[in-house]
Amino acid sequence: MKKTMTLLKIIFISIISVSATSAFAKKVSPTANGIHYPAGLKNWHVIASSYRTDNNTQRVILGNHIAIKAARSGATNPWPRGSILAKLVWKNTTHPDWSTAIIPGNFVHSEIMVKNASKYKSTGGWGYARWIGNSQQPYGKDKSFSKECLACHSQVKKDDFVFTRPVKIP
Amino acid sequence: MKKTMTLLKIIFISIISVSATSAFAKKVSPTANGIHYPAGLKNWHVIASSYRTDNNTQRVILGNHIAIKAARSGATNPWPRGSILAKLVWKNTTHPDWSTAIIPGNFVHSEIMVKNASKYKSTGGWGYARWIGNSQQPYGKDKSFSKECLACHSQVKKDDFVFTRPVKIP
Repeated sequence: MKKTMTLLKIIFISIISVSATSAFAKKVSPTANGIHYPAGLKNWHVIASSYRTDNNTQRVILGNHIAIKAARSGATNPWPRGSILAKLVWKNTTHPDWSTAIIPGNFVHSEIMVKNASKYKSTGGWGYARWIGNSQQPYGKDKSFSKECLACHSQVKKDDFVFTRPVKIP
Repeated sequence: MKKTMTLLKIIFISIISVSATSAFAKKVSPTANGIHYPAGLKNWHVIASSYRTDNNTQRVILGNHIAIKAARSGATNPWPRGSILAKLVWKNTTHPDWSTAIIPGNFVHSEIMVKNASKYKSTGGWGYARWIGNSQQPYGKDKSFSKECLACHSQVKKDDFVFTRPVKIP
């Protein structure tokens, strides 16, 4: 049994080490307000989709496991601490073989909102970040860029500053 | 060491048992061509999004792990055996607080395509299935419904009968 416990300890320590070293995508620079691009974001689960007629884009909205749990149980007002919502945004383009299907064209940007009511108190409890294009350049010269984000998101203060309405998947 | 191996065997057998019993969503009936609704589909990873201007819908396209691996490595013509592509489709509705944002409204249906060149030879190597609405009623009175699917998908025979073009996520 002692050997078993030792083996299990080694396994757990290995798992923790791997998690710790891969917590952020290291090639992508953090935003001016100190937010890192989460590694593995593209494998997060779906919260919703949407498209916009004013800027000709479409997007998929994903969530980390805290956000997904909240979204699927309807506990999103407020979203729990640690929730991260991610938007992947593309320009629209017409499907070459189906003229009424509008599909993702060039990648525009990825955006995240990180919930921490105390840390991000000055911006409604959410930390905002955006990375532009395929090269994932952080948006914003200094951390005041968050005010821009907040200006729009304040319109949905009643929904904890979140526009996204989680879909129900049967 | 013997005890360790026994313990590990128990762990692995438990994992396999859980996987086997949850391979299909048991509440959902299979389609007339014998295709089951895959359990855990809503946690599959994103392949693309799209919306259609002819029927006022938007969708997210997900893939099982075989499809995701193929999509992300560009090995999709043909898609490998065992690939499953899933479309989750909603009617469009306008965001109540942002008039140019079009978001998912009522759930329309889920659809999957299962790749098996021999099993589904008569329908281009893909097995088609659709489940309607939140109640997930199988579409098609008998298995001839697949011909309907094939009629449209034949337009993209050059792309292994798949309309979806996987996105690249940075």
